[in-house]
Amino acid sequence: MVSALLSDLATEIIIPVCAVIGIIFSLIQWALVSRVKLVPNGPSHNTKNGFNDSLIEEEEGVNEHNVVIKCAEIQNAISEGATSFLFTEYQYVGIFMVVFAVLIFLFLGSVEGFSTKSQQCTYDIHKMCKPALATALFSTVSFILGAITSVLSGFLGMKIATYANARTTLEARKSVGKAFITAFRSGAVMGFLLAANGLLVLYITINLFKLYYGDDWEGLFEAITGYGLGGSSMALFGRVGGGIYTKAADVGADLVGKVERNIPEDDPRNPAVIADNVGDNVGDIAGMGSDLFGSYAESSCAALVVASISSFGINHEFTAMCYPLLVSSIGIIVCLITTLFATDFYEIKAVKDIEPSLKNQLIISTVLMTIGIAIVSFIALPSSFTIFNFGIQKTVHNWQLFLCVCVGLWAGLIIGFVTEYYTSNAYSPVQDVADSCRTGAATNVIFGLALGYKSVIIPIFAIAVSIFVSFSFAAMYGIAVAALGMLSTIATGLAIDAYGPISDNAGGIAEMAGMSHRIRERTDALDAAGNTTAAIGKGFAIGSAALVSLALFGAFVSRAGIQVVDVLTPKVFIGLIVGAMLPYWFSAMTMKSVGSAALKMVEEVRRQFNTIPGLMDGLSKPDYATCVKISTDASIKEMIPPGALVMLTPLIVGTLFGVETLSGVLAGSLVSGVQVAISASNTGGAWDNAKKYIEAGASEHARTLGPKGSEPHKAAVIGDTIGDPLKDTSGPSLNILIKLMAVESLVFAPFFAAHGGLLFKL
Amino acid sequence: MVSALLSDLATEIIIPVCAVIGIIFSLIQWALVSRVKLVPNGPSHNTKNGFNDSLIEEEEGVNEHNVVIKCAEIQNAISEGATSFLFTEYQYVGIFMVVFAVLIFLFLGSVEGFSTKSQQCTYDIHKMCKPALATALFSTVSFILGAITSVLSGFLGMKIATYANARTTLEARKSVGKAFITAFRSGAVMGFLLAANGLLVLYITINLFKLYYGDDWEGLFEAITGYGLGGSSMALFGRVGGGIYTKAADVGADLVGKVERNIPEDDPRNPAVIADNVGDNVGDIAGMGSDLFGSYAESSCAALVVASISSFGINHEFTAMCYPLLVSSIGIIVCLITTLFATDFYEIKAVKDIEPSLKNQLIISTVLMTIGIAIVSFIALPSSFTIFNFGIQKTVHNWQLFLCVCVGLWAGLIIGFVTEYYTSNAYSPVQDVADSCRTGAATNVIFGLALGYKSVIIPIFAIAVSIFVSFSFAAMYGIAVAALGMLSTIATGLAIDAYGPISDNAGGIAEMAGMSHRIRERTDALDAAGNTTAAIGKGFAIGSAALVSLALFGAFVSRAGIQVVDVLTPKVFIGLIVGAMLPYWFSAMTMKSVGSAALKMVEEVRRQFNTIPGLMDGLSKPDYATCVKISTDASIKEMIPPGALVMLTPLIVGTLFGVETLSGVLAGSLVSGVQVAISASNTGGAWDNAKKYIEAGASEHARTLGPKGSEPHKAAVIGDTIGDPLKDTSGPSLNILIKLMAVESLVFAPFFAAHGGLLFKL
Repeated sequence: MVSALLSDLATEIIIPVCAVIGIIFSLIQWALVSRVKLVPNGPSHNTKNGFNDSLIEEEEGVNEHNVVIKCAEIQNAISEGATSFLFTEYQYVGIFMVVFAVLIFLFLGSVEGFSTKSQQCTYDIHKMCKPALATALFSTVSFILGAITSVLSGFLGMKIATYANARTTLEARKSVGKAFITAFRSGAVMGFLLAANGLLVLYITINLFKLYYGDDWEGLFEAITGYGLGGSSMALFGRVGGGIYTKAADVGADLVGKVERNIPEDDPRNPAVIADNVGDNVGDIAGMGSDLFGSYAESSCAALVVASISSFGINHEFTAMCYPLLVSSIGIIVCLITTLFATDFYEIKAVKDIEPSLKNQLIISTVLMTIGIAIVSFIALPSSFTIFNFGIQKTVHNWQLFLCVCVGLWAGLIIGFVTEYYTSNAYSPVQDVADSCRTGAATNVIFGLALGYKSVIIPIFAIAVSIFVSFSFAAMYGIAVAALGMLSTIATGLAIDAYGPISDNAGGIAEMAGMSHRIRERTDALDAAGNTTAAIGKGFAIGSAALVSLALFGAFVSRAGIQVVDVLTPKVFIGLIVGAMLPYWFSAMTMKSVGSAALKMVEEVRRQFNTIPGLMDGLSKPDYATCVKISTDASIKEMIPPGALVMLTPLIVGTLFGVETLSGVLAGSLVSGVQVAISASNTGGAWDNAKKYIEAGASEHARTLGPKGSEPHKAAVIGDTIGDPLKDTSGPSLNILIKLMAVESLVFAPFFAAHGGLLFKL
Repeated sequence: MVSALLSDLATEIIIPVCAVIGIIFSLIQWALVSRVKLVPNGPSHNTKNGFNDSLIEEEEGVNEHNVVIKCAEIQNAISEGATSFLFTEYQYVGIFMVVFAVLIFLFLGSVEGFSTKSQQCTYDIHKMCKPALATALFSTVSFILGAITSVLSGFLGMKIATYANARTTLEARKSVGKAFITAFRSGAVMGFLLAANGLLVLYITINLFKLYYGDDWEGLFEAITGYGLGGSSMALFGRVGGGIYTKAADVGADLVGKVERNIPEDDPRNPAVIADNVGDNVGDIAGMGSDLFGSYAESSCAALVVASISSFGINHEFTAMCYPLLVSSIGIIVCLITTLFATDFYEIKAVKDIEPSLKNQLIISTVLMTIGIAIVSFIALPSSFTIFNFGIQKTVHNWQLFLCVCVGLWAGLIIGFVTEYYTSNAYSPVQDVADSCRTGAATNVIFGLALGYKSVIIPIFAIAVSIFVSFSFAAMYGIAVAALGMLSTIATGLAIDAYGPISDNAGGIAEMAGMSHRIRERTDALDAAGNTTAAIGKGFAIGSAALVSLALFGAFVSRAGIQVVDVLTPKVFIGLIVGAMLPYWFSAMTMKSVGSAALKMVEEVRRQFNTIPGLMDGLSKPDYATCVKISTDASIKEMIPPGALVMLTPLIVGTLFGVETLSGVLAGSLVSGVQVAISASNTGGAWDNAKKYIEAGASEHARTLGPKGSEPHKAAVIGDTIGDPLKDTSGPSLNILIKLMAVESLVFAPFFAAHGGLLFKL
């Protein structure tokens, strides 16, 4: 075995440097966005934000001074609503986190009866490791760090999004290209901040923990897994809470506004409109940010924990050990270059350039990243090494590991393209769904559900191939780095993902500020592309979640000391079938929550329309705050049961039924949850874009179905409304479910291995 | 070990005697139904079918002579349509069966290169068994026998149903109780014929095969598994073809008739109305008959094949070996007594008595059967014996086996009651769904989907507990007899299941014959109870399918010679995740098929309304035949791809990827398919009954949502239409998918074990 080309010192420098570059880049993007001024300085050149040609308002003779002020006001309202909701959410979740942190400490500390003495190592029984109490303590600390970083990721994302939305609206007065760049740069701020921040915190934590653990890498990286658990726990509540918030407001606003009162989307007369726009920021931005951070943290932790019991860890090869972090570091640089293609190398001149530009981001980042991975694999890894594989060490070559990461990366691209095919209205599947609206909402729903089911096929094969290849080459480590490969371009993925809700908000602000219809058309075009990228982002999130949770599952099984997970033992099989049921239970809860909250919202909106005189005529203002409060209260209250289901299941199963049944539950929820998640996201995305297809009326076929208000359009609106909780609440939360249960099982594995399965012991 | 109390001779007598009693009982019921005359003999007493009080027609002064003639005509049209469709279907499926029979012979014959020499036995290597060629031949024969029995079960069921529907309508003129008894007796004809026939054919086949196999019971019962495969293959095409037929017609008829033209259900002016009524008979009756026969055949085969390699088989204890058949035999007697409770011991006097009477059937049969099982277990089994459990023999006591059968039986009852709770409009879940119609179709769909997801929870726990208990007591044999326990009251289950579509048809005939509204109200009440029993029947079918396929899966694994199915090997895991995807792929196909066929139907119905002058005014007759043809053509064409998916997957996976991956596929499709099937069936049932709840307006709450034609009612109709393919096409077909793949794998196991996994061998 030859050691890696890259020296340990170089590794120690490269990782933080890349992270810092990412943060600086993100700040630069932020500075560029902030050049668009939201404060009017009187009728001088400045209000046009340095623009010399005439704005749409000037062309149309509207007083643009007032428009800017109105935009600033609305932005302020959205930002305040989002901030206040997130603070409320974090308060509640904070309590939960503290309780859970105590649980972690108590459970893990009790493994060796809170002894402070060193103990025999789990895998290398000839060596002494730090006491279980230390692992308990450090796991708790890393859990809290993960949770805080996750909160930070979501919160900062929300902040930049609510900072950028009105600015995008204002830029849309100039051209679609300028609006695009503003929205995209803002997305990039979030993407880079999150990727760099996640890497940096993890890196620093490892180095600090090392001061105590020294040569006991097994214990060190076992404690580090708490970071993933913290990240994902927060993400769960963020996704579920945010998802319920946004969809309750959205569904409620649509049902009364669009269907009953026949007023356009985002009309300022609709009392739920501010809540709806706040929802985009707390659900699609903050929730998704926490979610992807969680995936990233978990896949890194999964890879590290497996590596720590492989030759890297045993021989203390620091550079090789840091391979997952190096892949993420190079990912930041690759994404940085990729971003320049969208913002500097290539200019959006017309609406039709938007989708190709976003798609190119995916392709460019994947191609560049392939080269990046090759470089890292050949300089950071020894040419051959061994990987722990359920009790035996398996010999692996660096080119094999390169292939593992690549297969994940490219599988992500395939999943992305398949998702695009099934959810973009440029292709026949969505057009067929739109066409089925001719015969009403029922056929629309039947076709939409069928589309979602069908869209599962290719992604599952892509995931299966990735698993087979990476597993065959490098066992569970292979799976973990494949997941990391899929997430290595996370900064770009997040940028194009966050761009969608920002554009959506920009459109809302334009509507509410009473701006020209031409601006709304521009933001709508941005938003339509955003719908597809959002679906692609969800595809990535689910695909990577499948790989991550399998890797974590493998690590759990190793740590829990079971040799095989045999389906044909009753303990495992009942776990498997109950695990496969959990995504349904979870979805039932979240769907019902959205439904009930939406009903409350509908009642309130109706009440306001009926009791506030002059509201429909725009003479008086609706009471936005009550709607915001309904969404807030509903989501806070309703996120507890599904959250508890996910957080408590591994604890209960592991403690009462033991590690075999828990293994079954993890495998069952993984293989079943992936299908439910993909089909829910794509069905929802397809319905949304089928509606947009009819509204836009861009083709001969589309025009036969429209215009807005026609019977087929009404049927399409019903489909869109049904799809809302599927694609933005249940679907994306499910990938957190499968990851979180796996990482939680891994963190608690020492306890389960020592004291689990009480019921069978009795 | 003490041998069984029951002598082999007694066993040889009891089984056929019970079967013959079942057949005779069924013929008696048929004779009772046929007393209702459908041929008017002029205005004499005879036309009133021996009734002395005045009929509804007489009370209302309508010429009842014409009504009877019209009923006879409509019945004739439905019967002809159904017969002609089934013949067409059987022709196509027949070709498939012949091809598949040849495949079975070739694949199994090739295991030992078509050698005619005796070979070493698989499990007892010290003994010689019959050549693989013999197994190939006899498997093919039993496959064909199973297919024919399945066809016969479906066909006879359809015949009696179309014989009884108009008679139920005529009896409804007298009282709801008389109509109920007619419909229920007809259901019983089907139930007993099917249960007795299935048992008898299986029993005779075993005895005939024994003439050749002699003491080689291992080979004998291996060949017998073909019977299950044949039964289930036919069932698949019956369910899918019939399901597409019935729902294309139903959805098509509703979309134009109820939604666009505002004419009632089953209005004779609707061109698709005959096709719709034909569909009930080919889908809900013939398809379901084949389906439950398949479950019954498979669970018997699964139990027999495991028993043949346990001490029963090794020591040639014939009575103990026949334990599964004895349980079914006693089941026929128990169901016979149970039926008398509904037809003779207890009289239906009012509408409100219907549901309790049907529910009592379930409870009575379960309680009596518990006693029956106890008797059989103590007289037919030695007090202790050994059961084959993946390579080792496990000691089991007869009381343990008693508990295994019981746990299945009672789990079935629990599943039945949970299904009733979630789909009957007497309870809050369906009422909540109905209430959500206030805010439109979108919330109705969201709540309905959530209800379906939620309804999975308890049944899955019931199945899990059954599996755990029966597996712990008696390994795979325990699972197989638990499944048999759930199906032991199949005659009663089928009777109350078939009663539903018969009542549905009776209502249709009343409407089409232009009979009094009071008759329609009576048949509607029968039908509403039928909706719930249909959902309960589906619950049983799915629950038993889960157990059966697990037992078959276990038998397959034993036969394929693998010791463990370790989830944490790449071969198994990719199978697991792809297997979990198959139910989605399959559902996508069937849902899309129903959607497309319904669209064609809508076009035709619209065309007729637009082009046939006087159709809406009832002055001219619609062209029913074209609609029948559209449904026929669509279902024949569209049943091929999903059928091929299910039939070919095990062959392809086994041949190319080998038995480990195939094991994964079986486990994955089982644990995922059960959830999809239960949620689809219950969601659809709930929507249907939510609609009926609003229509009936039986409570204060219901009246605030109605009447027919109100906005909430329209939303409920949309939900009902979406639910149609879910509950009658996709959902019930999925349980065949999971069983069929398992039994097929078992039949082909010798081939896969010898020649499978080509891709990995290369």
